[in-house]
Amino acid sequence: MKAVTSKSEMRAISDKLKKEGKSIGLVPTMGYLHDGHISLIKQSKKICSVTVLSIFVNPAQFGPNEDFNKYPRDFEMDSKIAVKENVDYIFAPDTAEMYQENHLTYVSVDKLDKIMCGKSRPVHFKGVCTVVLKLFNIVNPDKAFFGKKDFQQLVIIKKMTEDLNVLVEIIDCDTVREADGLALSSRNKYLSDEERKNAAILYKSILFAENEIKNGQKQISEIKKECMEMLSLNKFIKKIDYFDIRDSENLKEVKKADRSVNKILIAAAVYIGSTRLIDNKVILL
Amino acid sequence: MKAVTSKSEMRAISDKLKKEGKSIGLVPTMGYLHDGHISLIKQSKKICSVTVLSIFVNPAQFGPNEDFNKYPRDFEMDSKIAVKENVDYIFAPDTAEMYQENHLTYVSVDKLDKIMCGKSRPVHFKGVCTVVLKLFNIVNPDKAFFGKKDFQQLVIIKKMTEDLNVLVEIIDCDTVREADGLALSSRNKYLSDEERKNAAILYKSILFAENEIKNGQKQISEIKKECMEMLSLNKFIKKIDYFDIRDSENLKEVKKADRSVNKILIAAAVYIGSTRLIDNKVILL
Repeated sequence: MKAVTSKSEMRAISDKLKKEGKSIGLVPTMGYLHDGHISLIKQSKKICSVTVLSIFVNPAQFGPNEDFNKYPRDFEMDSKIAVKENVDYIFAPDTAEMYQENHLTYVSVDKLDKIMCGKSRPVHFKGVCTVVLKLFNIVNPDKAFFGKKDFQQLVIIKKMTEDLNVLVEIIDCDTVREADGLALSSRNKYLSDEERKNAAILYKSILFAENEIKNGQKQISEIKKECMEMLSLNKFIKKIDYFDIRDSENLKEVKKADRSVNKILIAAAVYIGSTRLIDNKVILL
Repeated sequence: MKAVTSKSEMRAISDKLKKEGKSIGLVPTMGYLHDGHISLIKQSKKICSVTVLSIFVNPAQFGPNEDFNKYPRDFEMDSKIAVKENVDYIFAPDTAEMYQENHLTYVSVDKLDKIMCGKSRPVHFKGVCTVVLKLFNIVNPDKAFFGKKDFQQLVIIKKMTEDLNVLVEIIDCDTVREADGLALSSRNKYLSDEERKNAAILYKSILFAENEIKNGQKQISEIKKECMEMLSLNKFIKKIDYFDIRDSENLKEVKKADRSVNKILIAAAVYIGSTRLIDNKVILL
């Protein structure tokens, strides 16, 4: 395993690998790795000849009052995991290496970046798209691996690569969960013991919605109402950012859970204490 | 010379050329070729092993009340020129091939796209950046050739490639002019004979500003005032969009023409009748 911090060195390595006919898998992360990231790495190891793990806490995707500064970082632990998982390269540039002082260029995916998480995080997806495109241009991967836990991000990145004719195949990987259903996230670290115990309610509310649909409830508004109620009754939930049921292909709103939609996305974002957690599930109708 | 209209065929050709170790030069145009374009082609022929000329009138860079529909098109004439100039490939996709129905992704270069031409053409540079990045991803060139006539576009595209770590070298080429100084532009076709004769005043006003500076006038505001007056006295000039004197590196406003600025850009946009023409000159201090 080799750690690289400079863009030009990373690109030179990638050019060399490409000339040798190697396929490159990129696993873009903000570090503080957990089993969710590890499952992305394992996927890449399985289908690409070389795996590059990028670790970069991207300031452009945090709003001014968000947790950029306190976002957990532990490069030593991340490196150990990377070695154990046989990652070939860690690409871990610092902020100044990724964004020159007078950075002005941004990539945005209209409409999709304004709903769901985009409503309360207006610059988030613009920051995500910009850094992902930069990483693609620096690492030049054949495939890039993203978790379904950030489902809206996944849809937006797929749309961006399609719209801009980027020749990187986006591979989505299943969410990894704790025994009680909580989706793994670096932000779970923020939770107190009590909050952690109660955080499982987020996924439970999504499973509840799934059950309602499977039991024949077609009125999305009804299901949403019940789930919002279920969540708001838990005193550790300080705020429900959204509870949404949408077409998973294009994130369009759905009124009825019937065969007019192929796959339905149930997605929610809540604050447990001051920690914002998101989760989702896609179900086939 | 081979004409290609499909993205995937173009990309396959480019991949093959790259594997053969060929360098690719891209000359992006909207067609209706003139000697300015031909000088870009000649530059590419000189330093790249293969030259791709793209012809695409990009709807995304025209505002709702601009001349997208009447923009001159003549593919037959363009093809003849391409053959004569030994262009290897014309890439000429139609609109549906370049923009799928639900295209949502745009690239923008903040600040730089809001001044000068960006002030009266608010979506223009966003459209330019988006299509240029798409062309780069489809053609995968080593170098791309742009004329200095569209100087702000040149600065913005250079900034975009730098900010997004795009590995394409941007080569700028000198403006080609008629005997009376008028910069070649496909839009000159719109001019009536009388308008055409009077259009030379645009470059004359820029040369006047250059002379003022070279003769020791340091007050930019004074120079601008004189040039605006000179232009407004010509009855064929229906509107002066802007007359700007800026730092040519970063397009920042300049108050004094002194050694604090390395190279000064004198740029103007005017309406001759209903035709919007732009021109500029960069001078060393």
